[in-house]
Amino acid sequence: MTSDRPADLPATALELRSTLTDDGLVTMAIRETDVVAPADDQVVVRVEAAPINPSDLGMMLAGGDASAALRAGDGMRDAVAVPVTEAAVAAQRARLGKPMPVGNEGGGVVVAAGSSSAAQALLGRTVGFLSGNAYAQYRTLHVGQCLAMGDGTDPADAAAAFVNPLTALGMVETMRMEGHTALVHTVGASNLGLMLNRICLDDGVGLVNIVRKPDHVEQLRSLGAQHVVDSSADSFVDDLTDALRATGATIAFDAIGGGDLASILLSRMEKVAGEQAGDFNRYGSDTHKQVYIYGGLDRGPTTLRRDFGMSWGLGGWLLTPFLATIGQDGAERLRRRVADEITTTFASSYGTRLSLAEAVDPEQVARYGRMATGDKALVTPQA
Amino acid sequence: MTSDRPADLPATALELRSTLTDDGLVTMAIRETDVVAPADDQVVVRVEAAPINPSDLGMMLAGGDASAALRAGDGMRDAVAVPVTEAAVAAQRARLGKPMPVGNEGGGVVVAAGSSSAAQALLGRTVGFLSGNAYAQYRTLHVGQCLAMGDGTDPADAAAAFVNPLTALGMVETMRMEGHTALVHTVGASNLGLMLNRICLDDGVGLVNIVRKPDHVEQLRSLGAQHVVDSSADSFVDDLTDALRATGATIAFDAIGGGDLASILLSRMEKVAGEQAGDFNRYGSDTHKQVYIYGGLDRGPTTLRRDFGMSWGLGGWLLTPFLATIGQDGAERLRRRVADEITTTFASSYGTRLSLAEAVDPEQVARYGRMATGDKALVTPQA
Repeated sequence: MTSDRPADLPATALELRSTLTDDGLVTMAIRETDVVAPADDQVVVRVEAAPINPSDLGMMLAGGDASAALRAGDGMRDAVAVPVTEAAVAAQRARLGKPMPVGNEGGGVVVAAGSSSAAQALLGRTVGFLSGNAYAQYRTLHVGQCLAMGDGTDPADAAAAFVNPLTALGMVETMRMEGHTALVHTVGASNLGLMLNRICLDDGVGLVNIVRKPDHVEQLRSLGAQHVVDSSADSFVDDLTDALRATGATIAFDAIGGGDLASILLSRMEKVAGEQAGDFNRYGSDTHKQVYIYGGLDRGPTTLRRDFGMSWGLGGWLLTPFLATIGQDGAERLRRRVADEITTTFASSYGTRLSLAEAVDPEQVARYGRMATGDKALVTPQA
Repeated sequence: MTSDRPADLPATALELRSTLTDDGLVTMAIRETDVVAPADDQVVVRVEAAPINPSDLGMMLAGGDASAALRAGDGMRDAVAVPVTEAAVAAQRARLGKPMPVGNEGGGVVVAAGSSSAAQALLGRTVGFLSGNAYAQYRTLHVGQCLAMGDGTDPADAAAAFVNPLTALGMVETMRMEGHTALVHTVGASNLGLMLNRICLDDGVGLVNIVRKPDHVEQLRSLGAQHVVDSSADSFVDDLTDALRATGATIAFDAIGGGDLASILLSRMEKVAGEQAGDFNRYGSDTHKQVYIYGGLDRGPTTLRRDFGMSWGLGGWLLTPFLATIGQDGAERLRRRVADEITTTFASSYGTRLSLAEAVDPEQVARYGRMATGDKALVTPQA
């Protein structure tokens, strides 16, 4: 059964889609789509804001070269085309020719609701949502995809309630579940890093923040961070070792992926573990050292020198399977904390706000494609 | 309380020790040591044979260059010196100047036993043992370090009853514990590989054997292996993919360590998983793919291209912590199987037999330092 459609709900609205084609181009285009009336357990959200996270770029740009973005489109609606290598096209045959929805999450106001009490309870409320198609003016969503915010919350503040907050909380949960007592994060000054810093300060968890610029050291220190290490400094490896010794961190979450950072982390953790162990052990220490790669800011290969004994692990870390491991109750506990602390612990900041048209402007695509820390873009589809 | 010392037990005997010094040399030397009378729960084993496993070489050679081995010694007893780089010396400060015992395991006959019934039960029996100091003529050991073999077992057959057999069994156990149904082994034609092949044939477990020479393909095929892939062939990657598809293997055990083999394994497992998944997933398949590095035949860095989604893990695998995870009952079950099948499933073969003096001959050191598959050395300390 479908609920009555409110009179002021538009029949159609704009959305962004990304289409990869055989000729080595991925095209992001604005197009018109139906605004679907809500079923019993659904609501319609007027989307006010949706962040462009690094995790969105894979679907948007298909691994293409954002710096080579070109204006495209049919003269009616704006679009942008980005070149994609043959190898990348081959690896993504399953999406060829299909206009893929984009935008993992967003925030907005519920303007229509289905007949269920859960849906009705959201009417008029500001919500954050996780949908995979957030770059759009309206979205019809299941109530379970929405997280209701306190009265008076700005929808822009609700826009990034899922990916970064749950990832940051998930890192601390993973750390505890796997028996570690402190952790390392390799992009300390990112929105996610700042959230993680606040969580660790609140929860009394040791955190080693790695940043890539001296400015970011100051920024994090001013926010109360105790251990901030600059990977661009000559003293990086020694500074890192000192911070690992001080915190006892034996697990790291790395958003960079490429290069030798994971190798350095494991090696320095092993050095500290070796200092604490007594006897010589030909296989290295018994301390299990773990690095999880959860992003790929550097898409180059990961190089491991394996100078860190035999008790180590490296792996991918992704939010969705993590949430599955903690179950519905665990996830609900984390969601509740996010909603309660959305303007404090889980506040995000943005370097720029983009209308849908600006989001497909080649210059803007090149800018957000760089994923520079502190310059995140927020799409505002009603602008 | 110490048991009576049998009259024919020698007071002293020869052993091998390895000493790393600050001047960048590691010296393996024959020396005389006391033969200790057994305590209640101990036995004295006359050591007849002890294999040189890759896992022994780290302690023996301290990471030095075996091909540059030089004759050393005091004119009384033989010794050999091997150059070690400054970095390797620095990484092993904990053993500097200490004569380290060598030889993880061996086989022999119990010639004296303490008063406990467990010790007395071993008197006169052929045993395999795990001790860390097996390159010696006599060893006084706790009964728990010994595995009694059936009557008539040649002590040489009992010499490799721990490291390879338990490692091979441990791989299959780990595969099951982590929810995989078939596995890959990257040194299929090694003694360990041949054991694993027999275990998998007996237990009906799918096994992909990777070998590095065409000869080894024939050898394994003649031993009943169904999936043998030659990494030196131009068609290696395709052959590997076919074998992964046929077996459904999503876990691999790699003794090579360096280079891009782990990356290729994860990438091809992901390709097969992607063929079986339906929809396009920007993070790759949900299939968890695991590679464990348990050796380092190639000491160079491990390079990961990360073209295998986000559901993956790479880590070190070591026998001792694995045995701890399965507990005493689990370990006893595996040991029982080894003793029962020591001349069949767990049979080893050797390319050469070396007296203690030959084990420190520079030419022999260079030969066993190469760790060539099919050319394993067996030390025979009574020779």
